Amino acid sequence: MENFQRNLSTGEVEIDGSVLYHKTEYKERRDHYAFFSVNADIHGFDTDRESFMGLYNGFNAPQAVMTGTPGNSVAHGWSPIASHYLEIDLAPGESRDFVFVLGYVENAADEKWERPGVINKTRARAMIAQFDTSAKVDAAMADLASYWDGLLASYQVESGDERLDRMVNIWNPYQCMVTFNMSRSASFFESGIGRGMGFRDSNQDLIGFVHQIPDRARQRILDIAATQFEDGSAYHQYQPLTKRGNADVGSNFNDDPLWLILSVSAYIKETGDWSILDEQVPFDDDESKAESLFEHLSRSFHFTVNHLGPHGLPLIGRADWNDCLNLNCFSNDPNESFQTTENQEGGVAESLMIAGQFVLYGREYVRLCNLRGQDDAAAAAQTHVDAMIASVREHGWDGAWFLRAYDYYGKPVGSHTNDEAQIFIESQGFCTMAEIGKEDGLCEKALDSVKERLDCKHGIVLNNPPFTKYVIEYGEISTYPAGYKENAGIFCHNNPWIMIGEARIGRGEQAFDYWRKIAPAYREELSNLHKVEPYVYAQMIAGKDAFRPGEAKNSWLTGTAAWNYVAITQHILGIRPDYDGLIIDPQIPLDICPLKVTRKFRDTEYHITIRAAGTDQTTGMIVNGERVDGHEAPVKSGGHIDVDVAV
Amino acid sequence: MENFQRNLSTGEVEIDGSVLYHKTEYKERRDHYAFFSVNADIHGFDTDRESFMGLYNGFNAPQAVMTGTPGNSVAHGWSPIASHYLEIDLAPGESRDFVFVLGYVENAADEKWERPGVINKTRARAMIAQFDTSAKVDAAMADLASYWDGLLASYQVESGDERLDRMVNIWNPYQCMVTFNMSRSASFFESGIGRGMGFRDSNQDLIGFVHQIPDRARQRILDIAATQFEDGSAYHQYQPLTKRGNADVGSNFNDDPLWLILSVSAYIKETGDWSILDEQVPFDDDESKAESLFEHLSRSFHFTVNHLGPHGLPLIGRADWNDCLNLNCFSNDPNESFQTTENQEGGVAESLMIAGQFVLYGREYVRLCNLRGQDDAAAAAQTHVDAMIASVREHGWDGAWFLRAYDYYGKPVGSHTNDEAQIFIESQGFCTMAEIGKEDGLCEKALDSVKERLDCKHGIVLNNPPFTKYVIEYGEISTYPAGYKENAGIFCHNNPWIMIGEARIGRGEQAFDYWRKIAPAYREELSNLHKVEPYVYAQMIAGKDAFRPGEAKNSWLTGTAAWNYVAITQHILGIRPDYDGLIIDPQIPLDICPLKVTRKFRDTEYHITIRAAGTDQTTGMIVNGERVDGHEAPVKSGGHIDVDVAV
Repeated sequence: MENFQRNLSTGEVEIDGSVLYHKTEYKERRDHYAFFSVNADIHGFDTDRESFMGLYNGFNAPQAVMTGTPGNSVAHGWSPIASHYLEIDLAPGESRDFVFVLGYVENAADEKWERPGVINKTRARAMIAQFDTSAKVDAAMADLASYWDGLLASYQVESGDERLDRMVNIWNPYQCMVTFNMSRSASFFESGIGRGMGFRDSNQDLIGFVHQIPDRARQRILDIAATQFEDGSAYHQYQPLTKRGNADVGSNFNDDPLWLILSVSAYIKETGDWSILDEQVPFDDDESKAESLFEHLSRSFHFTVNHLGPHGLPLIGRADWNDCLNLNCFSNDPNESFQTTENQEGGVAESLMIAGQFVLYGREYVRLCNLRGQDDAAAAAQTHVDAMIASVREHGWDGAWFLRAYDYYGKPVGSHTNDEAQIFIESQGFCTMAEIGKEDGLCEKALDSVKERLDCKHGIVLNNPPFTKYVIEYGEISTYPAGYKENAGIFCHNNPWIMIGEARIGRGEQAFDYWRKIAPAYREELSNLHKVEPYVYAQMIAGKDAFRPGEAKNSWLTGTAAWNYVAITQHILGIRPDYDGLIIDPQIPLDICPLKVTRKFRDTEYHITIRAAGTDQTTGMIVNGERVDGHEAPVKSGGHIDVDVAV
Repeated sequence: MENFQRNLSTGEVEIDGSVLYHKTEYKERRDHYAFFSVNADIHGFDTDRESFMGLYNGFNAPQAVMTGTPGNSVAHGWSPIASHYLEIDLAPGESRDFVFVLGYVENAADEKWERPGVINKTRARAMIAQFDTSAKVDAAMADLASYWDGLLASYQVESGDERLDRMVNIWNPYQCMVTFNMSRSASFFESGIGRGMGFRDSNQDLIGFVHQIPDRARQRILDIAATQFEDGSAYHQYQPLTKRGNADVGSNFNDDPLWLILSVSAYIKETGDWSILDEQVPFDDDESKAESLFEHLSRSFHFTVNHLGPHGLPLIGRADWNDCLNLNCFSNDPNESFQTTENQEGGVAESLMIAGQFVLYGREYVRLCNLRGQDDAAAAAQTHVDAMIASVREHGWDGAWFLRAYDYYGKPVGSHTNDEAQIFIESQGFCTMAEIGKEDGLCEKALDSVKERLDCKHGIVLNNPPFTKYVIEYGEISTYPAGYKENAGIFCHNNPWIMIGEARIGRGEQAFDYWRKIAPAYREELSNLHKVEPYVYAQMIAGKDAFRPGEAKNSWLTGTAAWNYVAITQHILGIRPDYDGLIIDPQIPLDICPLKVTRKFRDTEYHITIRAAGTDQTTGMIVNGERVDGHEAPVKSGGHIDVDVAV
């Protein structure tokens, strides 16, 4: 016989009054079980899926429900479920409450059994007792609400626009917390636990929740950094339970290292906790190779410096942030992963997105060096940043926008000289966030091209025109239907880069307009088209070239949450922590003024009013009644500060 | 971004008149597409699952069907489907035929496109044209029926018992053919293609289809044998497409080698094709290590000889046929596979099942040696067989039945001295099929114990009493709920071993009774309990200790098909090929006489009548009018032979 699949046949349950226990494999090697209880006597139950559903019923019409008759089934093998049957008589106007508890219990090996064959229910009973009355449940729900109120209180806006307030105050930070807890590893849409958490994902997610849970953000940074290699590169993915890198996928996604500078600088700015830089952190999960976190950042920075291509631009490796732009892959075999296959050796493909990223986070690294008093290191690093800016200006400008990359053959990607995909969003986002060529209008010109070529009713598409043919030297990006996913879809994660770029050149109205296009609360009226939940971001919305533009896909677990939160709160509303103070620099349409924002920053609550300057056009900031030059409110210990900003 | 899962977003379709083409990933790396056509003009269609089903409908209530309105949806990404919408007016009594064709096409790389973006439909159109009228379909169906009539014609019984005839003439050989095509690799119930085809499975399956398709059986044998190692052991599983062994699972299932002797001897008996033994066959898939197939059989035989334990009985390795009796595993970790984990080194656990198997197939090996004139090899092998018989008699007899094994500590498994699982079916089956101790009543006694301890209304359970606790030194077998799967379930694969054992000691009535208990046709009247299809064997029926005895699970792809077919046709009806003739030795209840059997054997059609001897009690065989001693009808070239057997 051959029997290498256990889950179809080991299901076991135990029924104890109104509590249904699911104890599959508990008898042998597992130390945990589940239960489902109700705080009332039951008049029947089901624990076997087939008995409950019926042989041929859809999930929308379980037999036990349709016939109103419980099967009183006891599952032995196959698919256990849990269903209570209660008969209730209600007088007109009467209501009754019942508390159902779905729980999970782990027991030590020597505590598994109450008596032979009967599981130890002590912990389950204690858990059920915690919630056995409606009053206890109401109290617990109030505690939970209070916990969330605490988390969300660190940034609250009152704008008069209910949708703006709803996104900023509740749903966007909530989604950031869910993303913190799960990264992509529990996604229904993505491949989930099998691949673990991404190095780049987790660093970016962190900028969306660091203000809510700084202590856990600190630990997350140390966990991530420990999967970095000594040359500065990193395991592309790691397992959240073991915290170890995923060797099956490996390294060589050349944007990965730089994201660590983003997350660490965001953490220090939020908390003022410089001690994190002196923490000893392993390389390659190996304690014997531990160095300070600051040394990790230095390796991140120098990884790019040490991996430049023929134009002085960063080598792209397997892919940069866009996993589907696979410039060294060249795959003809449908069984190959575009991400982990490199059929061409010695690839010299280069990424303008990493170039912009290097300038942006390289400058942050220079600031960290300076603030630590390491002026020589700062000066040396600045030289590399300047050289990169020069390379971008010399080799990365296509005339009206930034190129996206150079391919394996040294041909430009994202150029007007190409037939398809003449312009891409990522390099416009990162080069304008990095303000490369801001002084002579390159940023403005690039963003104007985005508006002209990539913008549409539902958001900003990734590239234009879409690919209609497979381009073997580009890889997966050219395989998707036009207008979907990485092929000219609105990949919501990167839209905020353009919003921030617009804010950097002072075009707050345009930034806010882009933000509203993809913000779920504003898309609620399009729900029949948008389809996914109107309160959380989706990874993608079908772009203007799609068969059905505007349909969204893959909600909840996406880096979109963190980046949109940062764009609206830090760059459009413009309130962002810095190392020595809170920057308040709104880039907004005047017609959404006045606004009030409460921001908890370090020990202090900042009560901020943002208003239009009015007829006398006097803009600027007043802190606790005194005018302050610039945009930075000082740090204070405890209490609160009133800030009035006229824009 | 992280996007390592393609299938949710690459769906693409093309619609051409009444033909719906599914061309997902064809644009890039795949060379195949599917289509669904109908030979009529359509008035609508759907190709997008959500449009067809509706957002919240169960599969039993697609929105397009419930509302009678097609969506005319064109899938771009996610889940393509194909559905035609036809409006038909029928006059009273009128009928109309439509032909729907679901097809699959592969095109060479330079023939993929008709024009840019439009797939080459030449092959699809040719295929559709083959079936574009009802007359063509009727003709094709008649061809198909004729093909099956040819396959099934090699063994046909007329008994007057419609259920016996239905099992023997149609459904059991049909299931054997499906099992030949799929082994377990396409099972809905088992883990499928990921593991490939089993070495032991495929050898056993072969005895159920070798008479229908001897040429393909020959190739299967050569494929299987090529995955054997030089020491006689074998990859436990191999991939049917590459024909290579599965290194992830590896070897060390110590029953594996002996099954090759079963399949090869069955092939030679059926065909008389001794040339197969001289075929050069690789070891370990390595052509440079090729030896004759006969040498492979010798290595199979000597693998057991070279792997004996302290009682002179065969070492069990990871497991014998019962994958769940893991005597060297000792697993406390739920993430470990019971089959591939050996936490104890130097295990001396021994199997009485392999002992019986060695005697049975070892004798076959001796016969092959003798018939090839290798008398010295035959005599040497016979010595080992005799020694094994002696070991079984000395160390393998528990007093009323055969032990099942010795565990890691040298304690007996399947003994009256144990608390649970005092008797197992496998060693009773193999030791009685091998007729060990037949001369002094051990077989009869063992089979009486089976009847007393293991038999129940629904078949013969695997062990008794069932396990109620996890026995770490036994492994997976003790993890299942009592009465299910390997823990006292009726594991239908091994029931025929007892039927054959009963036939070997002349108790045909008991053998036939066991056969009828699990034969699907006889269980049709129990369908509300039995649940699975009443025409194919299931892997398992819940045993007498189960919560719901009689419920069957995992139909279609199971070794049960081949073994039951062999039991009923070769050992109960008693008509089985041998090297030099057709043995006709029915072991049946007299009340099912008279029977007629037509058996095509080599070039000849044997017309066999089996009847009760009648009042004068003259039993025996008459061949073409002449009385023949013994039970073997001679081989003849061409034509037909009349055989009359009185029992």
